[in-house]
Amino acid sequence: MGEAQVSLRHLYRVFTKPEHQDSKLAQIEQHLSDNILDFLSQHVVTKKTLLEEIEQDFSDSRVPESPEFVSSHAESLLDKLVAHSVNTYSPTFIGHMTSALPYFHLPLSKLMVGLNQNLVKIETSKAFTPLERQVLGMMHHLVYNEDDIFYQRYLHSARHALGAFCSGGTVANITALWVARNKALGPEKGFGGVAKEGLASAYRHYGINNLGVMCSKRGHYSLSKAVDALGIGRQQLLALPCPTQTLKPEDALKAGKAYQESGNRLLAIVGVGGTTETGHIDPLDELADVAKELGCWFHVDAAWGGATLFSNKHRHKLKGIERADSITIDAHKQMYVPMGAGMALFKDPENANVVRHHAQYILREGSKDLGATTLEGSRNGMAMMVYSSLHIFGRRGYELLIDQSIEKAKTFAEMINRHPDFELITAPTLSLLTYRICPRDIQTQLQSADTEKVNELNQVLDRLVVNVQKLQREAGKSFVSRTRLESPDYPANSVTVFRVVLANPLTSRHDLQAILAEQHTIAQKTQEWQHLNSSE
Amino acid sequence: MGEAQVSLRHLYRVFTKPEHQDSKLAQIEQHLSDNILDFLSQHVVTKKTLLEEIEQDFSDSRVPESPEFVSSHAESLLDKLVAHSVNTYSPTFIGHMTSALPYFHLPLSKLMVGLNQNLVKIETSKAFTPLERQVLGMMHHLVYNEDDIFYQRYLHSARHALGAFCSGGTVANITALWVARNKALGPEKGFGGVAKEGLASAYRHYGINNLGVMCSKRGHYSLSKAVDALGIGRQQLLALPCPTQTLKPEDALKAGKAYQESGNRLLAIVGVGGTTETGHIDPLDELADVAKELGCWFHVDAAWGGATLFSNKHRHKLKGIERADSITIDAHKQMYVPMGAGMALFKDPENANVVRHHAQYILREGSKDLGATTLEGSRNGMAMMVYSSLHIFGRRGYELLIDQSIEKAKTFAEMINRHPDFELITAPTLSLLTYRICPRDIQTQLQSADTEKVNELNQVLDRLVVNVQKLQREAGKSFVSRTRLESPDYPANSVTVFRVVLANPLTSRHDLQAILAEQHTIAQKTQEWQHLNSSE
Repeated sequence: MGEAQVSLRHLYRVFTKPEHQDSKLAQIEQHLSDNILDFLSQHVVTKKTLLEEIEQDFSDSRVPESPEFVSSHAESLLDKLVAHSVNTYSPTFIGHMTSALPYFHLPLSKLMVGLNQNLVKIETSKAFTPLERQVLGMMHHLVYNEDDIFYQRYLHSARHALGAFCSGGTVANITALWVARNKALGPEKGFGGVAKEGLASAYRHYGINNLGVMCSKRGHYSLSKAVDALGIGRQQLLALPCPTQTLKPEDALKAGKAYQESGNRLLAIVGVGGTTETGHIDPLDELADVAKELGCWFHVDAAWGGATLFSNKHRHKLKGIERADSITIDAHKQMYVPMGAGMALFKDPENANVVRHHAQYILREGSKDLGATTLEGSRNGMAMMVYSSLHIFGRRGYELLIDQSIEKAKTFAEMINRHPDFELITAPTLSLLTYRICPRDIQTQLQSADTEKVNELNQVLDRLVVNVQKLQREAGKSFVSRTRLESPDYPANSVTVFRVVLANPLTSRHDLQAILAEQHTIAQKTQEWQHLNSSE
Repeated sequence: MGEAQVSLRHLYRVFTKPEHQDSKLAQIEQHLSDNILDFLSQHVVTKKTLLEEIEQDFSDSRVPESPEFVSSHAESLLDKLVAHSVNTYSPTFIGHMTSALPYFHLPLSKLMVGLNQNLVKIETSKAFTPLERQVLGMMHHLVYNEDDIFYQRYLHSARHALGAFCSGGTVANITALWVARNKALGPEKGFGGVAKEGLASAYRHYGINNLGVMCSKRGHYSLSKAVDALGIGRQQLLALPCPTQTLKPEDALKAGKAYQESGNRLLAIVGVGGTTETGHIDPLDELADVAKELGCWFHVDAAWGGATLFSNKHRHKLKGIERADSITIDAHKQMYVPMGAGMALFKDPENANVVRHHAQYILREGSKDLGATTLEGSRNGMAMMVYSSLHIFGRRGYELLIDQSIEKAKTFAEMINRHPDFELITAPTLSLLTYRICPRDIQTQLQSADTEKVNELNQVLDRLVVNVQKLQREAGKSFVSRTRLESPDYPANSVTVFRVVLANPLTSRHDLQAILAEQHTIAQKTQEWQHLNSSE
């Protein structure tokens, strides 16, 4: 490794131009770019190297004493890091919501990092502030479709916020429930409000035992983090069973009433607009009715599915989302923006004021500093990536992307249904589906077996799926994830399933066929397969 | 604006290569790069254009229907956005903690965005997971300096976390206090712990009225956000007065005892390692004693000052930081990493387990997925930027940067002291200082005037500073921020001051002289100056 000079002069040059000559930076950059493009264009998801081996390269806890040349460091990054990262661009990486990005984000990322704006305040972001507000406005319009006067009034208002841009869906969900909590337990005569006086005082003042947040068992784990962090407590996350993958309005109403009648207050119902595990959408319009009847906040976690609103063909699936008090959307999911672009949107632009903060040197009263109503402080200019994507794709571009993903999921579901040894567990509403591998004879057996036998077989099948998923992942050619779900066929117990997210537009029918074939081949070599086929 | 084609074929190409020919992307990128470098190399901070004018360009709330060519969109970004952003690279931008970045972050940002890893789980990040753990380990070592066996045991342990990487200091502070809260009100016989049962139940179980967090009035506003979000309440942030800019241990002990004796429990003392407004460092070692005596958590917010530990000359100023239970450090401040790189570090690697979460499809029990103990969910590979910076600068490189910043601040303080019409308000401990403009005769008058007269003069001087700061900012050549502070000379009332952060290594003595000269010229044209000089 080249040891670079330790001198102020050398350091100054690092801030302005490369070590040796002006073209050095360009060379390093070209080398890095070629290498990344080469890596990303491979059809392989990841090398077979074990994590424990990779850890050896990252085990020194000491900060190196001496500087290293950028060029030699770049080489070591390529060897140790890039070569052992995950090719999320591979068309056969269909296990998570992270996927290929359009190429234009690469030069844009340089622009963003190069400008190094801080969006917490106008003094370090200027034009980025109105840009971020416009992005929030566009997403607000996409969901709520208010009239021009509304947006003229609120888009750039110092006293209002149409939403909060943040690093991701988890912070967006926390922000939304924080706003809901502070609004529900706000100041009134004799009480300064929960923001000032805290949750215990608020419960005493309002005479409630507990606040609760309701969702289905498919609600994202960030909701559990949120109720923990916000002081509500994880036991007060009422996650109702949902063998059909969606929250039943009548169950929600019944459970909500029972909860309220026990001296508690239901803070919010969270409808999911595209569950992380299966892509199902809760019946939002009916849940909005339930929230209204129970007098609570209605939040929709559309981190994944929100982008479906771009599609005129499929947006009806989110009917009722426009009645939500707050909404979470991640641009780094189906909007194909790099990681780090979450948004909480608020129907009523006044609501974010319940979490408004001030400081003497920034966020002063009346300022348009974005940091006054966000959970995070300093933030980068990621909103630009969303802005650019909205313009470069346009609504119709996004519509095509959404439509083809859903179409592809249907095609894959058909392939699974046609294959005698696979069993579709949840059909796609959006571009997610789950299935498992199950020898044809066992499928027949399951239909007539008694509960005990069904459970016994399912346990073997669970192990089979776990095994196949692991072996396929380790082989590195493709990646499908797994999870455990209740299903309409097996409501009493959960079953382990393969989980597929068809986000990458470049994933072909051929890729999907190859993935199924690989799973089938792997399965046949397992103990579980032998066991199942010998137990007849 | 060019309207691009809406076709799947076109869209597929956006994911793989540019619209017209292979070299088009390279051309656009070159054009953007040239333009950014041109913008950043100007000595101007920002154009004079008013924010309200810029807002006109960002006022459409509708998502455009049709796609736009990348090339024409890039042009429009340059015109509307880049041209009106803030040149944080300018050597005369000395008002905030955001500064120039070393050039190597530009190609690295392409690498990061190009790979689009998601660090919430190994399945979407692989080598990035051990890398992030190593970065946390290196920073932990820098602060706590545990032995090799310690790091061998914990660095890559699935059941431990040396820290939590996050988007910034605010989330780091919230994370640290969240951990402190869940640990203080943890499970015991007959109680499931605050994480499960919530804050109100925890107060009842532990028989306390309130939890409190103590800091000085110079504590960062994120602490106020933290106690709000965590349900503790902003009134329970005991922000003690500190006319000398640091928290006095005897005041802390006294206030802490009084608080505990009133049926409350002090959750944490927060020492600041470099306040945002003046760069002062609380007496950390003595505050650690106080925390020990009061039996509470000790958190050090070293978002700014933590990097001082790289300097053998100045690290003694943070003595006692190694006794903190948790520490906040922002790499995007004095470590010159792009925005979005905060860290909470934990002395005891067991502690993060009090906020551990699991899910069925990721973060499974026993996994090394980083998301199990972070507040955020999906996160990008920003840890790579810190990793690379630690290697490319080395400890000695950072030491030089830190040393020269502090040296420069001393030089600037001397300039201010020598100038008859400026008054230094807080001398630099690190690379921050505050001062104000005050005609020489008024300085003399203030020394002998009675309180009423002092207050009257200070009010005019406050307006003068506000005015000069605003006019200088609007002129766009340089940027100094302002805040309000108590000072040893005026302990009863706050005064408005210029605030300077000397982060940019390229800021020269000449730049500083020019900034003072500009302020002096601007001041002489103000009403306040006339008023002060005629009132003798």
